[in-house]
Amino acid sequence: MNRPSGRAADQMRPIRLTRHYTKHAEGSVLVEFGDTKVICTVSVEAGVPRFLKGQGQGWLTAEYGMLPRATGSRTHREAARGKQGGRTLEIQRLIGRSLRAALDLSKLGENTLYVDCDVIQADGGTRTASITGATVALIDALATLKKRGALKQNPLKQLVAAVSVGIYQGEAVLDLDYLEDSAAGTDLNVVMTDAGGFIEVQGTAEGTPFQPEELNAMLALARKGLEELFELQRAALDGE
Amino acid sequence: MNRPSGRAADQMRPIRLTRHYTKHAEGSVLVEFGDTKVICTVSVEAGVPRFLKGQGQGWLTAEYGMLPRATGSRTHREAARGKQGGRTLEIQRLIGRSLRAALDLSKLGENTLYVDCDVIQADGGTRTASITGATVALIDALATLKKRGALKQNPLKQLVAAVSVGIYQGEAVLDLDYLEDSAAGTDLNVVMTDAGGFIEVQGTAEGTPFQPEELNAMLALARKGLEELFELQRAALDGE
Amino acid sequence: MNRPSGRAADQMRPIRLTRHYTKHAEGSVLVEFGDTKVICTVSVEAGVPRFLKGQGQGWLTAEYGMLPRATGSRTHREAARGKQGGRTLEIQRLIGRSLRAALDLSKLGENTLYVDCDVIQADGGTRTASITGATVALIDALATLKKRGALKQNPLKQLVAAVSVGIYQGEAVLDLDYLEDSAAGTDLNVVMTDAGGFIEVQGTAEGTPFQPEELNAMLALARKGLEELFELQRAALDGE
Amino acid sequence: MNRPSGRAADQMRPIRLTRHYTKHAEGSVLVEFGDTKVICTVSVEAGVPRFLKGQGQGWLTAEYGMLPRATGSRTHREAARGKQGGRTLEIQRLIGRSLRAALDLSKLGENTLYVDCDVIQADGGTRTASITGATVALIDALATLKKRGALKQNPLKQLVAAVSVGIYQGEAVLDLDYLEDSAAGTDLNVVMTDAGGFIEVQGTAEGTPFQPEELNAMLALARKGLEELFELQRAALDGE
Amino acid sequence: MNRPSGRAADQMRPIRLTRHYTKHAEGSVLVEFGDTKVICTVSVEAGVPRFLKGQGQGWLTAEYGMLPRATGSRTHREAARGKQGGRTLEIQRLIGRSLRAALDLSKLGENTLYVDCDVIQADGGTRTASITGATVALIDALATLKKRGALKQNPLKQLVAAVSVGIYQGEAVLDLDYLEDSAAGTDLNVVMTDAGGFIEVQGTAEGTPFQPEELNAMLALARKGLEELFELQRAALDGE
Amino acid sequence: MNRPSGRAADQMRPIRLTRHYTKHAEGSVLVEFGDTKVICTVSVEAGVPRFLKGQGQGWLTAEYGMLPRATGSRTHREAARGKQGGRTLEIQRLIGRSLRAALDLSKLGENTLYVDCDVIQADGGTRTASITGATVALIDALATLKKRGALKQNPLKQLVAAVSVGIYQGEAVLDLDYLEDSAAGTDLNVVMTDAGGFIEVQGTAEGTPFQPEELNAMLALARKGLEELFELQRAALDGE
Repeated sequence: MNRPSGRAADQMRPIRLTRHYTKHAEGSVLVEFGDTKVICTVSVEAGVPRFLKGQGQGWLTAEYGMLPRATGSRTHREAARGKQGGRTLEIQRLIGRSLRAALDLSKLGENTLYVDCDVIQADGGTRTASITGATVALIDALATLKKRGALKQNPLKQLVAAVSVGIYQGEAVLDLDYLEDSAAGTDLNVVMTDAGGFIEVQGTAEGTPFQPEELNAMLALARKGLEELFELQRAALDGE
Repeated sequence: MNRPSGRAADQMRPIRLTRHYTKHAEGSVLVEFGDTKVICTVSVEAGVPRFLKGQGQGWLTAEYGMLPRATGSRTHREAARGKQGGRTLEIQRLIGRSLRAALDLSKLGENTLYVDCDVIQADGGTRTASITGATVALIDALATLKKRGALKQNPLKQLVAAVSVGIYQGEAVLDLDYLEDSAAGTDLNVVMTDAGGFIEVQGTAEGTPFQPEELNAMLALARKGLEELFELQRAALDGE
Repeated sequence: MNRPSGRAADQMRPIRLTRHYTKHAEGSVLVEFGDTKVICTVSVEAGVPRFLKGQGQGWLTAEYGMLPRATGSRTHREAARGKQGGRTLEIQRLIGRSLRAALDLSKLGENTLYVDCDVIQADGGTRTASITGATVALIDALATLKKRGALKQNPLKQLVAAVSVGIYQGEAVLDLDYLEDSAAGTDLNVVMTDAGGFIEVQGTAEGTPFQPEELNAMLALARKGLEELFELQRAALDGE
Repeated sequence: MNRPSGRAADQMRPIRLTRHYTKHAEGSVLVEFGDTKVICTVSVEAGVPRFLKGQGQGWLTAEYGMLPRATGSRTHREAARGKQGGRTLEIQRLIGRSLRAALDLSKLGENTLYVDCDVIQADGGTRTASITGATVALIDALATLKKRGALKQNPLKQLVAAVSVGIYQGEAVLDLDYLEDSAAGTDLNVVMTDAGGFIEVQGTAEGTPFQPEELNAMLALARKGLEELFELQRAALDGE
Repeated sequence: MNRPSGRAADQMRPIRLTRHYTKHAEGSVLVEFGDTKVICTVSVEAGVPRFLKGQGQGWLTAEYGMLPRATGSRTHREAARGKQGGRTLEIQRLIGRSLRAALDLSKLGENTLYVDCDVIQADGGTRTASITGATVALIDALATLKKRGALKQNPLKQLVAAVSVGIYQGEAVLDLDYLEDSAAGTDLNVVMTDAGGFIEVQGTAEGTPFQPEELNAMLALARKGLEELFELQRAALDGE
Repeated sequence: MNRPSGRAADQMRPIRLTRHYTKHAEGSVLVEFGDTKVICTVSVEAGVPRFLKGQGQGWLTAEYGMLPRATGSRTHREAARGKQGGRTLEIQRLIGRSLRAALDLSKLGENTLYVDCDVIQADGGTRTASITGATVALIDALATLKKRGALKQNPLKQLVAAVSVGIYQGEAVLDLDYLEDSAAGTDLNVVMTDAGGFIEVQGTAEGTPFQPEELNAMLALARKGLEELFELQRAALDGE
């Protein structure tokens, strides 16, 4: 099997995590999975949504967007169309659930964290890059909160990262780019914690259904890639 | 372990598939998974969306809704709010992908099938019930099309069904109702074909992450439940 | 004159009122006027709209919808289009006004009743079926409120029901189905109380204008039909 | 009985119809029912809606609006809120149906007439003033079309006018202003043709239900008022 | 150079300011710049937007609209389309900023003034006519507030008026009508106070860019026109 | 006078124009005016809007957006709110008009250019940076079109750039950053061509009105800054 990218089946694209990428946000990271580039910011606001008021705990919510020309052909600007598409909503719900899994919300106080993931260049795997990058931005935002004296305890429970795997020409491959994703028979996004548990497993057969052993092969590959991502997250966080 | 429903861990709720439930649609099924009740209709319209025009193939798209008081407390009517929520869009995209997996769209001609799944009473598992019931409605709609002389070949490739599994008090359980789902640590929706392949696997850890062996236990249970569902679909279709 | 339905001019379709049709709502009725089938639920929420706050009285509001394939050809889902159409708004305003006429809102306390009428199969007369069925659901909801100790007085003043009449081939006919309605020159919806007064009279000439004596003939027919409906409402309510 | 306006029970407010009120529209009338002032314009565009294409007939559609401060306290601007309210949609549907009754659409050619009724000052009866004024604007627009050579036949079948009647302190009164309307037990809008038939009869009991004899008294009063309105329409049209 | 309107280069159209044009608003003016006619109302509501609460000062906000057939060919009704266009938002933001410049908001108390400018006939210069007319309506509204005892101090600082100028066939001309505006190479809107300062200067080259000396010529012409407008505003306000 | 930024009154911030910033667009530039950073892309699509069809000429349209945390405190995501705000629409209309001034649209063929300006970090002057950067991206896109053989003539007429000037503590200053802009009494945006003519002049007095001599001082300063910007644009374009 020859991947269009020329990579080995278990080889990730070059990953880069650039902290403090923009100056205003409490946490701000540019994450690159090869040619996929996403700006992840985490903002802090006092207060929580209505359904949590008075319970002394915090909340985290995520929003996702793509610049119109992040993609090969221009897509409509969602703000101009007047609504976010189903794909956008699905991805931002996934990011929100994944990032909440990194936190003990009861230690956050009545604060809300807004995670914004905006894709400035897309080449496959934007949701997994978003989760991986936003986790680092989240940790920076928590540090900012702590410096401000707004946090008594550290709400961080664990690192969270995500990677996509798929079946390309009958073989499991790691971290699909756009070309590979378009041609893959199955696409599986895996979100894990650095303690080794799954947060999300979302697999979709685009053409032929996939078999349990293919699922297992993909999960093993994902686990390998995620180990690398946790290393890169730790390195980025150490690197100040 | 005692499930709130009193069922054994591998026991499905009573399932009922009532064909020809409403009179106008080309296919119309009331599907019941215990107290979850969904009306699934399949409508046929000539023509395909713009991106498929002139290719001689068909299309299938799905929409999902809930009556405002299908749930324990009344939810807002999406038509009155002016938009479909993220959960709704996510579910209807899942139903559409799953049902398209049942078909060879190139044998459908330039027709579009509209699958509508409307929950009239919700008690957990509305998306899996929708997929299971809509498959039967789809087959009825294809039969109607054939009677009208609008189909030269049978586009049906295979049966598709779906079930939810989860980890409840540390143990894998099948077909969660609302109470069990609310309390479950992990919720996994599995869509399969009767030939044994996965179409979709969507697992979410609500609290503690889940481990690979838990995933395997859940998938085994899902497979058992799906066998029963395929039997019930076949029985319903034979029962005319 | 031969009605398409074969009924006598003053003959209603078979009417059925099934109480406790779904399990969550405080009141829930399936109403059938022949092939027209509407699920009517009544939900109770504490509080009133802003314009009534602090006045010690309650409120009732109604919403109406149709499943996309309730009709002969599929209609767009209003939630997907992003707004309710003019016909929908007109009907739900009519239902709301009619049901409020059944109540002494000052005896309801600061509670709001939400009436939801969702058409699962349409064959003409969906608004009149909705009003007739929702009245029974309303009474069940009031009983539920009373059992909960949330009502000190009974706010019910009277029964309310509705029926359509029309001029078909020059003659007044009762309770038009879809085919008759499409062919009728005039369509008149009448909402009355069981004490004999009119709540609403809405007549529209689709083609030729109608004359005062035709209006009188239609009103007489409506009155006859409404007597039957009040009987059926009472029977349904006795039937527990 | 003393009406707040000091008028006799069967006395209309002063009515004025000012033709050619604005310069751009094919037909343009300012209609005044006392302090209620509505600008009615009729615009002509080539072509018909999709459902009528190729049938050689025309169409007429109506839109209604109120300036935010047409009313005693400022109402929200519908364009700023992003949707037309239920009352607006209901009224513009009524205007459209009523005006279509004035025409033989098959003689209009494939043209669409847009009727716009914009209330610049409201004091009750805006929908009846709109219908009465728009009929005159419609006739002017048809004359413009004829001058342009765009009409071979005259599509006008008859005059249409509308008036409101109500039960005020137990007595039927004609042409209610805002104060009277607010206090009236019943409000009835009647649309007729000058040939004497009803186009629309819409009665609503705001408080106590109304009786058949009250309905008859109101209809008689409406008929008297409508005779006056038809006279005024004819006088305005003669007055060029 | 011959202007299509036959006016001299520095000649304004006939201007009329009709106060108390509608009866409900605290201030209400019909302003006419030739065939351009705008109803300007000012409404007063207690309270201020959230960002000003508790600061003891007031606010003024403006909304702008056009009747669909104010223009030569019918434009879509913004309420029916579900949003205000960019041109509308731009104009109403300009009106709001301009009118706020007339006031010392700290002397208004916690009240909000709503300025509504609705064009009933358009022939160029609707935004400048709106600002000029709304200033007079604003002064009437302040007088109404004072009579009600709701104002301790007079918040009026100065008169504000606006006029358009342009380059037509190479020469600066004052107060462009629609035909002149369509043909002009440059269009400049100038908002000033009667003390002689600029509030807004908005110039746009439609075709060839304009030169600094052309800008100066246009500004001089605008100043001349504005002197006339301030005179007319004063005359109108004296004329009670 | 001491500017908060410490710059001289006539000193611009450091300006950077990075071409080919993202890989998909026909033209793509990152423009930086100090800490203000905007990604400008130009995309080409065959075809023109309806009002231009069949005239053999092209079109250019612009859209503008800000990442939610481009600003000091997070702003709502417009796609999530369901509409673009007035400020956004105003800016993107300005960008579109300005960029169209750079082109002879009749030499573009029936193509549409989409200019997208997305602010990833805001510190004042986002609209002027957008225009300046998008002009360079536009030239790159035209070169791409030419390479594809899609252009017979060069539609570029001239360079376009924009800068803001203002009155800060009574003195004219060039290229305001956010802090200076917030404190400035007057803000003036100037768009020019490199041939020396004005495309747009938009001045707003935030507090005290500005005088003609202040306007002239600001325009002189703008002209100086624009000369520098044209130099930088030319240098960037030479720098391949």
